[in-house]
Parts: sequence; C-alpha cells; structure tokens
Amino acid sequence: MDALIEDLVAANRILAAERVVDAFGHVSARHPENAGCFLMSRARAPEIVGKSDIMEFTLDGEPVDARGRKTHLERFIHAALYEARPDIQSVVHNHSRSVIPFAITEEKLKPVAHSCASIGQEVPVWDAQDKFGDTELLVSDMPMGRDLARAVGDGKCVLMRGHGCTVAGNSIREAVYIAVYLEVNAELQWKAGRLGKTVFLTAGEIEKVNARLSQGKPGEGYETAWEYWCGRADVASSTDAKGPRLGF
Amino acid sequence: MDALIEDLVAANRILAAERVVDAFGHVSARHPENAGCFLMSRARAPEIVGKSDIMEFTLDGEPVDARGRKTHLERFIHAALYEARPDIQSVVHNHSRSVIPFAITEEKLKPVAHSCASIGQEVPVWDAQDKFGDTELLVSDMPMGRDLARAVGDGKCVLMRGHGCTVAGNSIREAVYIAVYLEVNAELQWKAGRLGKTVFLTAGEIEKVNARLSQGKPGEGYETAWEYWCGRADVASSTDAKGPRLGF
Amino acid sequence: MDALIEDLVAANRILAAERVVDAFGHVSARHPENAGCFLMSRARAPEIVGKSDIMEFTLDGEPVDARGRKTHLERFIHAALYEARPDIQSVVHNHSRSVIPFAITEEKLKPVAHSCASIGQEVPVWDAQDKFGDTELLVSDMPMGRDLARAVGDGKCVLMRGHGCTVAGNSIREAVYIAVYLEVNAELQWKAGRLGKTVFLTAGEIEKVNARLSQGKPGEGYETAWEYWCGRADVASSTDAKGPRLGF
Amino acid sequence: MDALIEDLVAANRILAAERVVDAFGHVSARHPENAGCFLMSRARAPEIVGKSDIMEFTLDGEPVDARGRKTHLERFIHAALYEARPDIQSVVHNHSRSVIPFAITEEKLKPVAHSCASIGQEVPVWDAQDKFGDTELLVSDMPMGRDLARAVGDGKCVLMRGHGCTVAGNSIREAVYIAVYLEVNAELQWKAGRLGKTVFLTAGEIEKVNARLSQGKPGEGYETAWEYWCGRADVASSTDAKGPRLGF
Repeated sequence: MDALIEDLVAANRILAAERVVDAFGHVSARHPENAGCFLMSRARAPEIVGKSDIMEFTLDGEPVDARGRKTHLERFIHAALYEARPDIQSVVHNHSRSVIPFAITEEKLKPVAHSCASIGQEVPVWDAQDKFGDTELLVSDMPMGRDLARAVGDGKCVLMRGHGCTVAGNSIREAVYIAVYLEVNAELQWKAGRLGKTVFLTAGEIEKVNARLSQGKPGEGYETAWEYWCGRADVASSTDAKGPRLGF
Repeated sequence: MDALIEDLVAANRILAAERVVDAFGHVSARHPENAGCFLMSRARAPEIVGKSDIMEFTLDGEPVDARGRKTHLERFIHAALYEARPDIQSVVHNHSRSVIPFAITEEKLKPVAHSCASIGQEVPVWDAQDKFGDTELLVSDMPMGRDLARAVGDGKCVLMRGHGCTVAGNSIREAVYIAVYLEVNAELQWKAGRLGKTVFLTAGEIEKVNARLSQGKPGEGYETAWEYWCGRADVASSTDAKGPRLGF
Repeated sequence: MDALIEDLVAANRILAAERVVDAFGHVSARHPENAGCFLMSRARAPEIVGKSDIMEFTLDGEPVDARGRKTHLERFIHAALYEARPDIQSVVHNHSRSVIPFAITEEKLKPVAHSCASIGQEVPVWDAQDKFGDTELLVSDMPMGRDLARAVGDGKCVLMRGHGCTVAGNSIREAVYIAVYLEVNAELQWKAGRLGKTVFLTAGEIEKVNARLSQGKPGEGYETAWEYWCGRADVASSTDAKGPRLGF
Repeated sequence: MDALIEDLVAANRILAAERVVDAFGHVSARHPENAGCFLMSRARAPEIVGKSDIMEFTLDGEPVDARGRKTHLERFIHAALYEARPDIQSVVHNHSRSVIPFAITEEKLKPVAHSCASIGQEVPVWDAQDKFGDTELLVSDMPMGRDLARAVGDGKCVLMRGHGCTVAGNSIREAVYIAVYLEVNAELQWKAGRLGKTVFLTAGEIEKVNARLSQGKPGEGYETAWEYWCGRADVASSTDAKGPRLGF
C-alpha cells in the first residue's frame, strides 16, 4: 500500500514534468486490497501533490473520509471506469495540448509509431453534448461518468470534445505511459498530416507491439520509461530491486 | 494592501514563468481602498519586478508619486479600463506568441475547451489604425486607452492588431488565469484549424462554465491554478489559510 | 573598454539563452577607441564565451594578435559590415530556427508586430550561389563578406539562403534586440500565414516605432529587454546606474 | 579505452539533453582495440547511463559478458552496421519528434541548411513491412539488422517507417552531430514546406560542406558543437588538451 501511494505521487509529478497535466488533470489507482475503492489526491495541481494529499474513494465517487479536504469534481471519471472495468487499475485524466485538437475536429487519432501502439487501433471521441446537452463539459456525476466509460468500451483511451482525454491502464505505469504517448502520437500525427498522406501502423503491427508490452518483456517497456521519468521529475524511483506490482 | 501587493508581484512572475509576457507586458490591480487608483510596477520586465517596484497611478494614468521612477508608456490601457468598468479589479497586457497571429488575420478567437471559456464568446480585435492612423501602435494616451476600452465593451479580452492583447478580470487571479488560457486557446485553435473544421464550445457551454467560475466553486477554478503557478514561478503562495480577497 | 567587453560576453550568453544561437553563431562589436578594429570571441560556442575569449580583428578580418587561438571562419561577415557602414557598432550572425524557413522560400519576412519593427520594411535574402556558385555557404573571405554587406544595404538585417541570417545594430543591445525579434517575427508571421491573409505593419507604423527606439526613450526599449535577458542568461547586468554607451 | 567510454557516456547524456532521445534510443561505439566488438549501455534511458552501464557486444549482437544485465532489444541495428561498414565507428538510434513525420509520409528529407549537409543528399526510408510483414517494428534479430544496413548503403542516415531513424558516423562526435542536425533539418524543412516551394542545398554545396567537415578543419565543426553540448548536458568535456580520437 505504501509503495502504491509512492507510485501514485510519482505519477502525479511525472505527468506534470512531462506536461501531460498543468494546473488541472488527475491520476488515480484502484485500492490494492479493496477493489471497490480507489485512491486519488485531493483537489490540487498534480505537480505539488504529496502522500498526505491522497484520499480514498468508493466506486460511486464519494470520499471515504474527506476530513474537510476538497475533492476533484471529476472523480466520477475514475469511479465509473473502475466500476465498469475490473481489469483497470489506474486512470489518468488530462488536457494535453496536442491531444485536444483531435477532440474538436473530425480527424481520428491512430498510432503512427510503435511507441504509441498502446493507444489502440483508433481513439474514440466522447461528446457530453450528445446525451447531456449544454453542460460545463465536466464529468460531474455518475451518469456522465458511466456514459464516458461506455465510450471507452474495452479500449484504453477516449478523447472528450471541448475538454481533453482519459486514459486507463492495468497499472499506474501503464496508464502514465499511455497518457504520455497519446500526446506524442497526437504531435507526430498532426505534423505528418501537414506533409501529406500518413502511413499508420497496421492492425497486425499494433497487436504485436501490445502483445510484447503486456508480457512485460525486459528493457523495452514501461519500466525503462518510468525510471527515466522519475529522474526528470526529480522523484526517487521506487522501482529498484523490487518485483512487479499491480500485475504489471 | 500588503497581501494585494504580494499577489501583484506574484502575478508579474507567474506571467513571465508561463511565457505570457517576455521583456515586455504588464499587470495591474485596482487599489483595494481607493477605487480611483491602481497599482502597477515601474517600467521593467515583469520577471524581475519586486514589491518596491510597485507604483500608484490615478485613473488618468498619472503616477501619484513617481520619485523619478520610469513608468510604462502604456499605463493608459489600465487607466482607461478601470475608468470605464467599475467591476474590473485587474488588467494584464501582453504579446504572447500564439495570440498575436489571431490579431493580424481574419480568424476569430473563440473557446475550444472548457478551461478557456473565460475568454468569452468571441474575442474582439482593436486596430489603432482605425481611429488614429499610423502610430507606434502603443496605447500612449487616454484617448487611445478609452477607444481600446470601448472595444473591450462588457467582455474580458481584446486583441490589438500588430501588437498583442489585453485581459481584464474581477481579481488578479482571474486576470492572470484568463491571460494564460487565452494563449492556450489560441494554440489549440490554431492547431485544430490545421486538421479541419473545428467544433467550438456552444454559447450555453460557455455560460455554464463561467457561471461556475464566477461562484468560486472549490477545486476546479482559479485558486488551484494560482497555487500551481506560484510553485512554478518560485513564488511563495499567499493563498494558504486565507479567505477570499478582492471579491473572488 | 572593460564595460564593452562585459557587454559582448553578456551578448554571447543572452543569444544562447534565447536560443538565437546554438553551438554556432557569433556576435561582435566595433572597437570603442579604434573604428578600424572589432572585437569577437575565438571560435567556440557563444554560451561558454568568457572575457578571455575576446579577440581583436582588423577590418579585413585578420586577428591582431591571435596567440594560437582558433578564429571563426566567418569573421568576414563582421569585417565587411564594419568596413561598409561606419554607423554599425555591432553585428550578430546566427541560424535561428524560425528565420531559416524564410531564407529558403519565396515568402518575404516583414514586421507583423510593433516589437519587431526594427527588422525594417522587408528583409532581403542573400544567396551565395548567385555570385560564387557552389560553396560551403560560409562567408569565408572578404569578397563574399562585401557581397553580403551590399545585400544589407542601408538596412539592419539580411537572410542567407541555406544558411541563416545577419543582423547589424548601432549598439550591442540594439543588435541583440533585433536578432531576438527577427526570430520572434518569423515565428509570428509563419503562424499567422497558416490562418489566412496577414496584416503587416504599415510603412508609417514601422517608421514611427523605429523613431522612438532610435531616441532611446525610457522604459519601452532596448534597456528593458537587456536587463531581462541578463537575468535569464544569469549574467550580472552592467546597466545599473550607468549612462548610455556606444551612442545608444 | 577510458576516454572512449567517457565520450560514450557523454553522448548518451547529450542526446537526452538535446531531446534526440527520450526514455528510448541508444548510441554505441566500435571497440577501439577490437573492430569485431562494439560498446553500448545496458537497457536503460540514455539520460541516466553511467560508465558502469557500458557493455561489450560482438558483431552478431550478443553480449560478451552480460552478468545478468538487460540488453537493448535493438542491439542488432548497431551490430549489422558495424558488420557491413568498417568505416563506421559509432551508431545512434532514436525517435526524435521532427524526424518521424518524414518516416511516415512521402516527403523526402534533404538538407536545407549548411549545418545539416552531413545527413547526405537524401535520406532513405526503410520499412520493416516490406520484407518482414507485420512485426513489432523493432529490429530484433540480425536478418532485420542486415536489411536495415542495406538501406543505409554507403550513406549515414536512414529513416524507419512507424518507428524512428538510425545514424552512423566515423566517430561518436560525428554520429551525435548528425543525429542532432537530422532533427534540426526535419524541423526546418517541415516549416519551410508550409511557406511554399523550398530551395534545398545543391549536390555541389553538400559535397563542399562535407569535404570540410571530413578534414576536421578548426572552429566550424564537430568539436565546437561537442564542447557546447557537454556544457548543456552538464558533462565534463573530455576534449580539452587532447588530440583527435577515433580517426576524427
């Protein structure tokens, strides 16, 4: 549990250092001992989150013991995904700058490089307007959260029109990795599209890359990136001399 | 008053750290005890402004007690806005890099994401050429300042052709927030426009987001951003354990 | 003389900090007591130039007392400009990233914002190919330098096809300012051009801005920028409590 | 040998500091005393590579003495290039952000500025799909490595579809230089192409620039850049007061 909280704090700082989140955005992890709960910081910018900011929530998005701390309004994004998908262990919600243009235009975000295959064959776009009409665009209750989770389906990413995106992973490290490379893919695809017709990864290529990653093969995957990002975010890595955690 | 000056110094440094201003640009606040005066630094780059650089000005743009300090030539932007709009408590003027392209072309800047709704339904463009012909483009007297204030109308932003933009807020934190997200929206809208037809926020969505922000609801608004920006600009936040200030 | 050398070292570091130069590029100043000589560093990256790296050259580009130090191959750019134009006190040569695209396409670089008026009405492009055929593209002797100086004419900037640009000023601070804002203008003009038809500054506006700058009016000009850039480049500013220098 | 390992560690850190590599990517050098071996770090992010991470490999890509250390899956890129080309002393493999768009579209990458002439007349693109069908896109055995080496031919660079690029040099410094300026050229060519028809360097210009660089003429070449990059990457330069190494 301590190790998980350390990783969750590290994830907050990594996402800030890599500019996936700014003042806003959040990352959570399912409770390692109680699948009906998840852990997320109180409402503050990820870059300054510390251990004492981590709170526990039930899968309806309510804090277990708030003690007066403010909570993220959009905790329902996380709650609904953990409710819908037992395989999901971590969720990132953010508004990164290369991703949003794909959330407000017709062009579909699809992998253009092997390092971005984790985003899946094509990233769906969810629009709050479709079912809820004019809103603040924030996922502020369970019905909105569940509608968003339906759009994720059995994938790992969803774009949110006029808002940002949400990424789910089998571990904190996977969710952070996909959130970073969703932004990278958006940047690459945007630039390539200005040059001419873009060659995307084939369905077979995407499957092969993801098969390797899901096996946690050494030296090419999430752990290498995590160690690097911890260094850049000035977080003491907790990966050394430890076995896999959270099934990764 | 001390707290306000601290916030004004912090605003200078935040705007520099977030690259909204460079060597040039300025931010002011209405005097908390005398609505007929405002506070702004002497003429120097915002990044290096300290408490002792803050000067007092009347609403015709004249320094109350200059003591030989050089003043910003464009102090009339601030003076005219405080004169025209009693609700305005803070003004930012800057030349940020994603905003200017929208000030020199026909494309209108409009919110594309919920975090940018504060910029209003559509940002007007003011052109000094229209009333004043060939000038240095700087707002260097009250007639120019008043003409600019008319272009702002009852909104919060205006672009200035061949020059930059001006943002007004109900508090320092709101003005800083809008100045940052005006730049963010310009970046996002510019990128999206290269991909294809862009979906903008609806009028109803913009209203709903701004209604929430104006109520100062916890955890999603200006305070979260301010705390984050203070950290990045290496400014000790003065928000902790204090109530709201300047009506925000 | 000491103050000039300090400013020249500061100019090297500022240009590096502002990403106008990288490993390559150089800045020089005319000798303050001997108009037939100029000062420039030995051949090394501007970011790491110190006082002891500054060498003296005659106006034919030869070092006065080399003492085994390697010299920049392109010192003839500087020599030829000082030879042709007695008014020029400082020269910057660089390859900044937004400028080069305008040196290799038909689009003319022209001021789009008041802060960039110093670049002049339209920046000419010099192509070594025209008179010298296939070369290494480097200005490696006086005939090439003089041909480049002719292209500058009575202006302050020239782009160099397949290479970069050269900027001349009446002082180190002016040359550095123009070099920075030439890059800024290129970035702004490039972005604006993607949006649609761009409105450039009128000839009258350019003249008015430059008239103010040449008068060295307080608080809006080169000194404010210099103080800011010294802070960012971590150079102790030598501007405080001193009078103007080099005629600026 | 110690000096070579120091340079190889420096190369890792420089490529990270210049954003040519991120968590992934690698650089190697041929063994200075045994042309049938090469040196490369174990599998970890280049930014955090130290001397003790450097391992020795044979030209079939196998570690000489692994001692349990994880190796880069794509070590076959390096092995096959050293096998095919006795002149090559160093290899860089990376996924830099401006290069990839040229690896997934039809536009050919060609030098637009003298500093980028080292990339050669036109950079070929290798596609794993052509001979190997759907793969993870990684060069994970000698047949793939040899096919890639064939695409490099007698050049110095190759783009890899859906993946990144590989650069070869006559020294570590040359390979690092070309890797950095391949990325720079991609950025410049991409921007120029948005403005209009781009003028590329002529074949004669490319030859002349490269003739100078291959002679190691003072003050304009790889050593100036290396010293600068060591400073930025906070690596103590090992260039001072030493002769050329590895034939450069």
